[in-house]
Amino acid sequence: MAVYTEVREDDLAGFVRGYDIGAHLSCKGIAEGVENSNFLLRTEAGTYILTLYEKRVRKDDLPFFLRLMEHCAEHGIACPLPLKNRQGQILGELAGRPAAIVTFLDGISRKRPAVEHCAQVGDSLARLHNVAWEFPMCRDNALSIAGWHALAATADGRADEVREGLGETIRDELAFLDAAWPKGLPHGVIHADLFPDNVLFLDGRAPGLIDFYFACNDLLAYDLAICLNAWCFEPDNSYNATKGRALISAYNAARPLTAEEIAALPTLARGSALRFLLTRLVDWLSVPPGALVKPHDPLEYWRKLRFHQTVKSIADYGWTP
Amino acid sequence: MAVYTEVREDDLAGFVRGYDIGAHLSCKGIAEGVENSNFLLRTEAGTYILTLYEKRVRKDDLPFFLRLMEHCAEHGIACPLPLKNRQGQILGELAGRPAAIVTFLDGISRKRPAVEHCAQVGDSLARLHNVAWEFPMCRDNALSIAGWHALAATADGRADEVREGLGETIRDELAFLDAAWPKGLPHGVIHADLFPDNVLFLDGRAPGLIDFYFACNDLLAYDLAICLNAWCFEPDNSYNATKGRALISAYNAARPLTAEEIAALPTLARGSALRFLLTRLVDWLSVPPGALVKPHDPLEYWRKLRFHQTVKSIADYGWTP
Repeated sequence: MAVYTEVREDDLAGFVRGYDIGAHLSCKGIAEGVENSNFLLRTEAGTYILTLYEKRVRKDDLPFFLRLMEHCAEHGIACPLPLKNRQGQILGELAGRPAAIVTFLDGISRKRPAVEHCAQVGDSLARLHNVAWEFPMCRDNALSIAGWHALAATADGRADEVREGLGETIRDELAFLDAAWPKGLPHGVIHADLFPDNVLFLDGRAPGLIDFYFACNDLLAYDLAICLNAWCFEPDNSYNATKGRALISAYNAARPLTAEEIAALPTLARGSALRFLLTRLVDWLSVPPGALVKPHDPLEYWRKLRFHQTVKSIADYGWTP
Repeated sequence: MAVYTEVREDDLAGFVRGYDIGAHLSCKGIAEGVENSNFLLRTEAGTYILTLYEKRVRKDDLPFFLRLMEHCAEHGIACPLPLKNRQGQILGELAGRPAAIVTFLDGISRKRPAVEHCAQVGDSLARLHNVAWEFPMCRDNALSIAGWHALAATADGRADEVREGLGETIRDELAFLDAAWPKGLPHGVIHADLFPDNVLFLDGRAPGLIDFYFACNDLLAYDLAICLNAWCFEPDNSYNATKGRALISAYNAARPLTAEEIAALPTLARGSALRFLLTRLVDWLSVPPGALVKPHDPLEYWRKLRFHQTVKSIADYGWTP
């Protein structure tokens, strides 16, 4: 559930006047984005998303995210394009917060994606990697393997409140990944959060990719592993090899995987499952009793992790080179 | 904060196909409406509001609300027009809930209205009363004087948790209103909740009126009294007679008040203040400890009530006939 910053009408009108998009006609807070306040803004020139960046997003990271979207949109990726204001800036300030206006993308996110959606996402992810490859800015992935140790330490001693033995599972998995994490794979800018919520489908069009606020530099195939976790499991947490084949095959067609990436994918998938297990676990343990907000279930990713631990090669994901 | 019912993409697509508005392009949950789930729906034909009616709204009341909006929109009031589906129905079902699609109104609600906004609201309210006068359906006001006794009983014994002496104030005020409540005033369909959130302003246009889900049959001047409370007090709860004059004067120009209504307005304003004091008090007392949702402050309306108790005639509201 999004945080909503209250914006005074006059402040909003003044902010919109700073752009060449006509007078504003309406502005509705929308239930999207966990980290930021998002508004659907209509003006005489069209429909946009206005985002106010809340405290959990580091202000220093915003130029990376916004410039990356601009770079990708200008190179043919269907993603939001940040607007420049009359001073040529893509980042402004509203209600005491950093704020930006980006183009609105039509499309419908699929909470229960079908095989065809997995194929489209694989293709779009590879195209994003190909285009973002040339993006000149860098941002470390705070939620890569070093960050997992910090998260595990935060949850330490309380993981077993969620499930008995979970603490030990996490420690063992971290030890495995420390030893097995691949080196020397192709790296570049990754989306790092391309979940179904963040992909907008519309018939006859490449899907729109949104929410670049976890984007960072990391192993490209790790981004594919995140998508395997996010797109190819059924609601009962069983792995769907048909969806996996569609995802990997479409990715590989647009950016061929190297032999090293293919060999590393099961390890990357374990790492990705642990990453979401850990962030969800920390969120879960930090919710005050009686709160109305129900965080994501960390055990969903514990179940996915257990599946990946049984995987012997990429063939088990439904695809072979 | 709105409740959001999750709607499956295929169900939504099927629902939209039931209307002659083209394919749906996007659908975003919006942070509006306390009682219902509201979505901003874009289709090939335009922009609409899709509402799913949650449990707090009685299904039997929905035809009244929707037909009233239709009647008003067709008679020149700037309010949402419910769409008819291909079967000619304005009420359907989606995700197991009653659901309707209405036209979207551009405009900006003013959390801190200026005098000009009060004048526009007075004019719009009177025009609404004039048009709704001929609406053939009826709905009793569950939140009129009989309902206040029930609310007071619900809060009984706990009002003093909010402020010492509040329980006695409520009992005394109810006794006063039982004796003083006017009889024989012009009655008809009223909006009954025309707060700043529910009025959308746009330069050069009559303001758009939304959220008809408290509309009912009651005294017309009681609706004006609700607006006095909702629009003419400053954030520090001081009464602004300039705003009051603008509101009443514009109302009276479009629907002249009778001498009896003018005489009764202070009593109606006391009743209206007590109504919102009581509903807010019940909500306040029912919030579980630790909940993130902060209900409206009931004491805002206790302060407004105290002002109305000092009023001797409508002149104290800034207006004389």
